[in-house]
Amino acid sequence: MNYDQIFDQAIERLHSEGRYRVFIDILRNKGAFPNARCFAGHNGPKPITVWCSNDYLAMGQHPKVVSAMEEALHDVGAGSGGTRNIGGNTHYHIELERELADLHGKEGALLFTSGYVSNDATLSTLAKLLPGCVVFSDALNHASMIAGIRNSGCEKKVWRHNDVEHLEELLAAADPNVPKLIAFESVYSMDGDVAPIHAICDLADKYNAITYLDEVHAVGMYGKRGGGISERDEAAHRVTIIEGTLGKAFGVMGGYIATDTRIIDCIRSYAPGFIFTTSLSPVLVAGVLASVRHLKSSSEEREGQQRSAAQLKSMFRDAGLPVMDSVTHIVPLMVGDPVKAKKISDILLAEYGAYVQPINFPTVPRGTERLRFTPGPAHTEEMMRDLTEALVEIWDRLEMRIAA
Amino acid sequence: MNYDQIFDQAIERLHSEGRYRVFIDILRNKGAFPNARCFAGHNGPKPITVWCSNDYLAMGQHPKVVSAMEEALHDVGAGSGGTRNIGGNTHYHIELERELADLHGKEGALLFTSGYVSNDATLSTLAKLLPGCVVFSDALNHASMIAGIRNSGCEKKVWRHNDVEHLEELLAAADPNVPKLIAFESVYSMDGDVAPIHAICDLADKYNAITYLDEVHAVGMYGKRGGGISERDEAAHRVTIIEGTLGKAFGVMGGYIATDTRIIDCIRSYAPGFIFTTSLSPVLVAGVLASVRHLKSSSEEREGQQRSAAQLKSMFRDAGLPVMDSVTHIVPLMVGDPVKAKKISDILLAEYGAYVQPINFPTVPRGTERLRFTPGPAHTEEMMRDLTEALVEIWDRLEMRIAA
Ligand SMILES: Cc1ncc(COP(=O)(O)O)c(C=O)c1O
Ligand SMILES: Cc1ncc(COP(=O)(O)O)c(C=O)c1O
Repeated sequence: MNYDQIFDQAIERLHSEGRYRVFIDILRNKGAFPNARCFAGHNGPKPITVWCSNDYLAMGQHPKVVSAMEEALHDVGAGSGGTRNIGGNTHYHIELERELADLHGKEGALLFTSGYVSNDATLSTLAKLLPGCVVFSDALNHASMIAGIRNSGCEKKVWRHNDVEHLEELLAAADPNVPKLIAFESVYSMDGDVAPIHAICDLADKYNAITYLDEVHAVGMYGKRGGGISERDEAAHRVTIIEGTLGKAFGVMGGYIATDTRIIDCIRSYAPGFIFTTSLSPVLVAGVLASVRHLKSSSEEREGQQRSAAQLKSMFRDAGLPVMDSVTHIVPLMVGDPVKAKKISDILLAEYGAYVQPINFPTVPRGTERLRFTPGPAHTEEMMRDLTEALVEIWDRLEMRIAA
Repeated sequence: MNYDQIFDQAIERLHSEGRYRVFIDILRNKGAFPNARCFAGHNGPKPITVWCSNDYLAMGQHPKVVSAMEEALHDVGAGSGGTRNIGGNTHYHIELERELADLHGKEGALLFTSGYVSNDATLSTLAKLLPGCVVFSDALNHASMIAGIRNSGCEKKVWRHNDVEHLEELLAAADPNVPKLIAFESVYSMDGDVAPIHAICDLADKYNAITYLDEVHAVGMYGKRGGGISERDEAAHRVTIIEGTLGKAFGVMGGYIATDTRIIDCIRSYAPGFIFTTSLSPVLVAGVLASVRHLKSSSEEREGQQRSAAQLKSMFRDAGLPVMDSVTHIVPLMVGDPVKAKKISDILLAEYGAYVQPINFPTVPRGTERLRFTPGPAHTEEMMRDLTEALVEIWDRLEMRIAA
C-alpha cells in the first residue's frame, strides 16, 4: 500500500488527458467589472476583461448590494456564529426567505450555504422521506443534483435531455403506486437551452409525480421580477420545488429552495446538509436581500444582459465562429478538444487580456470541450469587437476551420 | 400516493418526540456581542445575551476583520461570480490557502464553502480514490464526516468514542493490504472532550493508515498560533489531513483542509463538492485572512475565552448544576430530556433574556439532551452570575434535582 503512488497516478491521469486544471488568479477592479487584474505572470498584476463570470448582471458591484452589506457588517458582524437552529438564525435570514418565497409565489423558502448544497441536501432528503421513491432525472442535470439523487439511495431513471416523450415512457413504465420525483433544470448552463416546463408538469400531473426545478442560471435573469423561466412561462405554481442560487445573477453567494411550508418544514428538520452547518453570513444575506429586491423592480440589467448576449452571438456568427445554438444569455463556442480549448484560452489571456476559461470534462462530456462566454450589461460593443477579432486570429493561427 | 400526507407524518413525528425546532430570530448588537436583539415576541426586538454562539472568540466583530471585509467589498465586490476553476479564483483565496497551510505546517490548503462541505467532499472523494479503502470512524464523529464516509460508498468500521484499544482491534482485524483511513475529531463539540491524537497516529503508523482530523472546534482556539489541538500537542506533522472551519473561532464562514500538495491536487480535481460550486465570497475570504493572521500572533482572545469557560464551569459546579466533565472551552449542562431542555431554554429567553439553545436529537443521542454554553472573552463575571442564579431558580421551579 503506497498512498503517494495512488494519488500521483490520479493526478497523472489528468495531465495525460489534457485536463489538469490551473486556476487563474484574479481580482476585479473597483466598480469597473468586467475589468479585473490577473496575477498569472511575474510582472505584477495585468489588466484583463472577464468573459466567463456568472455574476451575469454585475450585481456583485451594485451600489445597493455593496451598501447593504457594509451596513450589516458594521451592525452585526462577519459571521452568524452558528447553525440555523443554534444561534445562527438572524432576522436577515428570515426576511430573505420571505422575499424569495414571494419571488416564486410559494409559501416558503429555505436558505442553504450554496446552490450545490441546496440541491444535494434537498434531493437526498426528499427522496429518502418518500418510501420507495423513483427519481426521474434529465440526462444533463448538474453535478449537485446528481450527487443529491445518488446520496438519497433511491432508484434513478435518466431521461434523454429535454425529451418529454422519453420521460413519459419512463413514467408510464414505473409502478403507479410509488412516489415519483422529476428533477430538471430550466436553463442548461453549458448549452444555453431551456426545458419545456409546462410539458413536464403535464406529465407530472398525469403520473402523480412531484417536480424539482433547478433555476440556478435563470433566477434574477428571466421573468418580469427575475423569478426565472418558471415566471416567464407562467409555470411557477405548477412546479413543486424551485431551487436557485444567490451566487450568479444575484451576485453574492448561497442557495435556496422555494416550495410549500410542509416541504420546507421537512427539509429544515431532516436534511443534515441544512442542519449541521454554520448558516450563511448575515453580511451575504443582507447583500442578497438588496439584490433580489432591486431585480424584482428593475429590468434594466436583464435587458442589457440579453442585448449584450444577442450582440456577441451575432458577431461570432458573422465572423464564422462555431457559436452553439443557445436560446439564452449563454454564448458557447464549440472547440471539441481539451488541449485546443486550453490553448485558445491561454492565448486570449496572455496576448489579448481576455479571460475565458476552457470548459472541459467533467463539466461537459468529452469531445464537447468549449469556451463559454457570458457577456453582461457592462461589456461594451468595443470589447466584443476586440474579442471577436482576437478569436478569428487565433482560429486562423491554430488552423481551425471557420464556418462559411 | 398522497405526498402531503407523507410530509405531514414526517413533521408529526417531530412534534410527538418533542423535537420540533423553532428557530430563534436574533440580531447581534453593533460591536457589543454577546449582546443581541431577539425578535420572538410582538413588542419589538428585546435585548438578550447570547450564550450558545460558536463565534467563540468574538472575532466576527473584531475591528481588523470588519475593516478587511469592508475593504474587499469596496475593492472587488460581493461575490466571486464563479467556481474556483471558472472565474472564481481570486487572489484572496490563494493568499488564505497559503496562510492556512502555514498555520498547520502543511504543504497546502484548500478552501470549501463550509466545514460541512470540506468534510463531505474530502472524505467521499478521498476514500473513493483509494481502491478498497476501509474507513475507521470514531463513534461520535460529526454528521458531515458521516455523510462523507457514507457517500464514498466505502466499508466503514466504527470505533468506540476515543477508545484506541477498540480502534486497534478493528485495524488489526482488517486486511493489511487495503488502504485505511482513520477519521476523528480533536475537540468533540457537544461533550467538550479531546481525542488522543498521538496514540491514534501511533496506530496509523503501525497499520499503515492515513489520518483525517476534524479540528473545527479547535482551530483558532488551541496552540500558540491557533493551529488547534494538533498544534498544542505537537502532533500536526503526524496527521495526514487537518480539516477546519472558518465560521467558528475565526468568526466568518467557510471551511478548509490542510495537507500534502498531492492530496490537495487530487481533491480539487476530483471532488464534485469542490468543483461545481461558486467559490467563497472574496469578502468572507478577506475577513478570514485578517482573523487567522490576528489569532496567529495574539493569544489574548484564547486566554480570555478559556478563563470565561473555567469560571462558568466552576460557578455551575458550585451551584450544584449538572455540568458535564468537559476538559475544553465547552460548558454542557446535562438535562436528559428533550421537553425539559426546551422548557428551560424557553424560560431563560423569555424571563431572563439569556439565549441558549436546547441541544436535542439528532445533534446528540436521545436521552442526553442538554444545554450547551459557550462563554467567550466578552462574557462578564456579572453575566455569568446572573445566568447561574437563573438556572438554579429554574431547576428549582421544574423540580429537577440539584447535586449536593
Ligand atoms: C445548474 C446548476 N445548479 C447548481 C449549481 C450550484 O450553485 P452554487 O454555485 O450556488 O453552488 C450550479 C453552478 O455552480 C449550476 O450550474
Ligand atoms: C465537528 C464539526 N465538523 C464540521 C462542522 C461543520 O462546519 P461548518 O459549520 O463550517 O459547516 C461542524 C459544525 O457546524 C462541527 O461541529
